[in-house]
Amino acid sequence: MVNRRRAPRTGTAPPFRSDDGRWQELLDIAARIFARKGYRSTTLQDIADEFGVLKGSLYHYIRSKDELLFEVVRSVYGAGLANLRALAAADLDPVDRLRAVIRGHVLYLTDNLVGTTVLLHEFDQLSDEHRARLPIREYQAVVADLVADAQADPRVKPDLDPRLTALAVLGAANWVYRWYRPDGKRSPDEIGAAYADLLVDGMLIRTGAAVPGEPAER
Amino acid sequence: MVNRRRAPRTGTAPPFRSDDGRWQELLDIAARIFARKGYRSTTLQDIADEFGVLKGSLYHYIRSKDELLFEVVRSVYGAGLANLRALAAADLDPVDRLRAVIRGHVLYLTDNLVGTTVLLHEFDQLSDEHRARLPIREYQAVVADLVADAQADPRVKPDLDPRLTALAVLGAANWVYRWYRPDGKRSPDEIGAAYADLLVDGMLIRTGAAVPGEPAER
Repeated sequence: MVNRRRAPRTGTAPPFRSDDGRWQELLDIAARIFARKGYRSTTLQDIADEFGVLKGSLYHYIRSKDELLFEVVRSVYGAGLANLRALAAADLDPVDRLRAVIRGHVLYLTDNLVGTTVLLHEFDQLSDEHRARLPIREYQAVVADLVADAQADPRVKPDLDPRLTALAVLGAANWVYRWYRPDGKRSPDEIGAAYADLLVDGMLIRTGAAVPGEPAER
Repeated sequence: MVNRRRAPRTGTAPPFRSDDGRWQELLDIAARIFARKGYRSTTLQDIADEFGVLKGSLYHYIRSKDELLFEVVRSVYGAGLANLRALAAADLDPVDRLRAVIRGHVLYLTDNLVGTTVLLHEFDQLSDEHRARLPIREYQAVVADLVADAQADPRVKPDLDPRLTALAVLGAANWVYRWYRPDGKRSPDEIGAAYADLLVDGMLIRTGAAVPGEPAER
């Protein structure tokens, strides 16, 4: 096991993974167990038991527990990024698109609490090498680009820093996983709409505070 | 060690702690080591070595590593809450007070990255019993109360949910610990001011969007 953990790794998943219908099932099972027990307390035996194979057969799919965590987190990141990009491609004006993206991202997170929990709780367990292979910058860039695009709209503050604004938006949204409970007072829709209104309205020029001489914006 | 971890605990710290000048020193050392190595990888031996005592002498201060983590996190929470309450007591109008609180909270977090990192990384390592003794609700309530107070001001959206708004503010601010680097492009002051403007402006009615018949607000 120790030797396997230290074995050199190729940069991409072996080809059998995409051919094997059980690969995503393994990732889903691992995510559920990591979310429930925590990564450090989970053994490959736990995962093999729930996956219904002998522990040795897991090595057909992964070399080690840390590789499995990386593959779970990469899969969660990939799905979240695909969702964010789909939201960002909506045929809306740039301000309404930002609202839709924030609302949609909050809904996505509350719909995917298991994956989000693993990603955000266990991120620190990943090696530097694994972290470097996650699309973290791309995630931020989707939102930062939307903010920069929106700045072409005269309603939007021209002096917003797109990256800083994106980090505030993602921070507020990601934090939802910490306190959201499906049986809580507010529905995901209400939370998403409230966050979108707070954060996007905060990007807009207040008419009363507009530059003197500029016409009031609607 | 296992027996000590399971020993019944009193609800408050033994009195020697406040009398002993080294108590805070122990917490600071433990926080630094937990932040650097992670709680799970840290041994009481590591802490005793850096504290300059034999491992057995640590039991004068704490019963177990999990109690030490709890005391570190409780101390970080307590100091952060005291700072938040001091900011919230500023003699300012409620809207400017919210700006000052958000800016001051971001500055506080960037000034206290070690404690913040331990609190946010290792929160999940705490037992339910320990978590229940942390002032988490009080933390949220300081900000939620400020939002509710600000709603007496006609500039502020009357339909904001104070708790949800507080969670968005704290989420955005707390997330800073994840990406902030002292040698980064933006200073803590710039980050704090940008977050305060984004989040507080988002709580204000846009004049162009005000209720028809209401006078435009400044």
